[in-house]
Amino acid sequence: MLLTHFDESDRARMSDVGEKAVTKRIAVARGRIVMQPSTLSLLDGSGKKGNVLNTATVAGILAAKRTSEVIPMCHPIATEHVALDFTTLPDGVEITATVSCSAKTGVEMEALYAVTVAGLTIYDMLKSADKTMRLEAVRLLRKTGGKSGAVINEEETR
Amino acid sequence: MLLTHFDESDRARMSDVGEKAVTKRIAVARGRIVMQPSTLSLLDGSGKKGNVLNTATVAGILAAKRTSEVIPMCHPIATEHVALDFTTLPDGVEITATVSCSAKTGVEMEALYAVTVAGLTIYDMLKSADKTMRLEAVRLLRKTGGKSGAVINEEETR
Amino acid sequence: MLLTHFDESDRARMSDVGEKAVTKRIAVARGRIVMQPSTLSLLDGSGKKGNVLNTATVAGILAAKRTSEVIPMCHPIATEHVALDFTTLPDGVEITATVSCSAKTGVEMEALYAVTVAGLTIYDMLKSADKTMRLEAVRLLRKTGGKSGAVINEEETR
Amino acid sequence: MLLTHFDESDRARMSDVGEKAVTKRIAVARGRIVMQPSTLSLLDGSGKKGNVLNTATVAGILAAKRTSEVIPMCHPIATEHVALDFTTLPDGVEITATVSCSAKTGVEMEALYAVTVAGLTIYDMLKSADKTMRLEAVRLLRKTGGKSGAVINEEETR
Amino acid sequence: MLLTHFDESDRARMSDVGEKAVTKRIAVARGRIVMQPSTLSLLDGSGKKGNVLNTATVAGILAAKRTSEVIPMCHPIATEHVALDFTTLPDGVEITATVSCSAKTGVEMEALYAVTVAGLTIYDMLKSADKTMRLEAVRLLRKTGGKSGAVINEEETR
Amino acid sequence: MLLTHFDESDRARMSDVGEKAVTKRIAVARGRIVMQPSTLSLLDGSGKKGNVLNTATVAGILAAKRTSEVIPMCHPIATEHVALDFTTLPDGVEITATVSCSAKTGVEMEALYAVTVAGLTIYDMLKSADKTMRLEAVRLLRKTGGKSGAVINEEETR
Repeated sequence: MLLTHFDESDRARMSDVGEKAVTKRIAVARGRIVMQPSTLSLLDGSGKKGNVLNTATVAGILAAKRTSEVIPMCHPIATEHVALDFTTLPDGVEITATVSCSAKTGVEMEALYAVTVAGLTIYDMLKSADKTMRLEAVRLLRKTGGKSGAVINEEETR
Repeated sequence: MLLTHFDESDRARMSDVGEKAVTKRIAVARGRIVMQPSTLSLLDGSGKKGNVLNTATVAGILAAKRTSEVIPMCHPIATEHVALDFTTLPDGVEITATVSCSAKTGVEMEALYAVTVAGLTIYDMLKSADKTMRLEAVRLLRKTGGKSGAVINEEETR
Repeated sequence: MLLTHFDESDRARMSDVGEKAVTKRIAVARGRIVMQPSTLSLLDGSGKKGNVLNTATVAGILAAKRTSEVIPMCHPIATEHVALDFTTLPDGVEITATVSCSAKTGVEMEALYAVTVAGLTIYDMLKSADKTMRLEAVRLLRKTGGKSGAVINEEETR
Repeated sequence: MLLTHFDESDRARMSDVGEKAVTKRIAVARGRIVMQPSTLSLLDGSGKKGNVLNTATVAGILAAKRTSEVIPMCHPIATEHVALDFTTLPDGVEITATVSCSAKTGVEMEALYAVTVAGLTIYDMLKSADKTMRLEAVRLLRKTGGKSGAVINEEETR
Repeated sequence: MLLTHFDESDRARMSDVGEKAVTKRIAVARGRIVMQPSTLSLLDGSGKKGNVLNTATVAGILAAKRTSEVIPMCHPIATEHVALDFTTLPDGVEITATVSCSAKTGVEMEALYAVTVAGLTIYDMLKSADKTMRLEAVRLLRKTGGKSGAVINEEETR
Repeated sequence: MLLTHFDESDRARMSDVGEKAVTKRIAVARGRIVMQPSTLSLLDGSGKKGNVLNTATVAGILAAKRTSEVIPMCHPIATEHVALDFTTLPDGVEITATVSCSAKTGVEMEALYAVTVAGLTIYDMLKSADKTMRLEAVRLLRKTGGKSGAVINEEETR
């Protein structure tokens, strides 16, 4: 099976997307930061929760734009839209990132990277209270656009 | 409980570490990238595996050095040592990052961030073969140094 | 009135420009760095003035290219032209930045950001002589291109 | 008078701070983003205001940490504390940045740069409603630490 | 003769490429890192050589993507393909970088910059054994695309 | 012989400098950009030469500060002084970079990287007139500080 970021000698390269068509591409990724319920409750009834989630949003959006600086073989992409959504769980926060572009390659890595950075930002802002948080289940929900067609791993019920 | 990256009005800030002592600080974080066994087997018997893991190593080391650019409230840290270790699992690769410094604050976020970037780099290099990979269980194993003492969440048996 | 970088729940996001047309867009911004006349005269009759203004030019051009890394909701833009112009005032230096691109969104922030970085660069190079400099009146002069039409706040008489 | 970022031939260089003492250094800078009162009122009675100011805070803190990447002759500084404060004015928002470090040179440029980036971030988030905003009066309020002693340009009455 | 990055007053600017056509552009650059044969032999018969060259590949690819952050007048380019090739010489390693894009300006600087960063990465990984390495003969082999036509300075015989 | 950026399994890592002493460290590197004499003469009798060399100075200084972002195994270093010097040759420009710090490891890579970026910046600003320029002889002249003692490869006669 083809691993596109390798040449025929098994050396790493940035795959050539020059001949691919510019199409609208969207990717949605999700993960969650799991913590003790008492940690989560520290955010109740105050402005902290809004500020934590907004800080994670900003960090995730900034990260999505710089994905190709960090993930070595990623192509530079001019993202046209980035949004982060959060759902409070009993034991943590679920993070969903939606990224879109008009480009020759997709934004799967941008969405995944935004989720991890948003998750680690939440971790960082709560870590003085909890040393046992975990980032879990970071995965692609779906992506559309491009020759190989849509991938729907999971329905977004929320 | 104190959330150090907030002021008394619940606004975000970078906490003041000016009065803390410079001490040797080490953090070890771990996570894993989970994939279909057939994806993992694409790396067998060729130079690909070495190049994938080296690429993930380089990405993780570079990331650790730039953590404070990405995680908004992280203090800039001059890391003195960064190493990535990989263990092949039946269904993926376990990633361990060890980071150390001599500073007024620790490198917990640097180690966690290195794990996520190394994991996403592996994901990126294999994603043309598998759309269902997941980054799982990213957490702190242990950290030492600093006034609050050591945190040992998990023994490193490997 | 619409604030495009917010969703319907008042959360920040990078607005979706995917459906906008790619058009030629130009923005011109201006500001000034105000200082004591004696500070300004330090630049007379030597190569210093040329080097200060060239350094500010380089800093401003580099900054314009990286605007979307710094201003969280800015879209990445491939700038096609960036120029900085300087006019010596009796009590400082006026800085004008012109930026253009062919894109789905404009370069207003790029021009404004280039002015501020050029101004702070001049400040930095003169600050050992003057602690009272001020960056003043950083604003958009005009922008063209895009569906909402031209904005002309001020004529450029120089 | 000495301009420290020049050599004896009037060429630019990063001044040598190797022989200076490591001391605690604090700088406070201030500026304001001026807008139409109707623009400011768009932030009333909703979560927008909190998110705008938090986004500006995050942008300003991230910027302070990267000042030496942007202002060419600035020395790299490991900031130990960064905080942004905002005061609503009748026609805009006043922004104050406080930065501290333990280093051989100060953080004046870091504080000024944080103010400009926070101001431009507010501008960016409101610019779809107002094309006439201006960044004004960006200046140093005070700095302490270092051989040349404290500079107090202005009392912080708030 | 025209130096495009200057205006009519000899001031530096980023040249205006707005009116140029988007075409496929390829650039190939080459250089070599020269060292003592005994240094080179340290890489024999072990995994070191693969890891050194892969690390140089990753560094060169990441660098190519960020050229416009580093070379002041370079236009931002979304690279569509980057590959590094290495040939072992009796006294060093020859490095060839191939970069392509579809853009209004070429990727000559991207290819040259990738060669220098890959070369310095090899230097860095071997420098504890040899203080006399040199980076030599970094030049453009050829470039194609754009109005001024192809430049073929040298045939790639390997 | 020890290659410090490898572990005992030949995997790349950032070597551990935690136990090394903080000492004053200086490195001087040199290289040259070689061009046709007619290219060089384009800089005569105008402000262009000053602006080209100042632009190369700014690019080199900015690069030195970011070396550890680019060269994967380099330790982050807070540079205390960076200066670029240029000597006009009959067929090009010789570039010398001097970098110093007080740190646990040296600034050899910073000086070499500053030379290459300054050289490529000159190349970029002249490349519309000459496609055959070459970056040559980038090497360490000397470094001092640290346990292994001074390395003097070459006297700086200018």
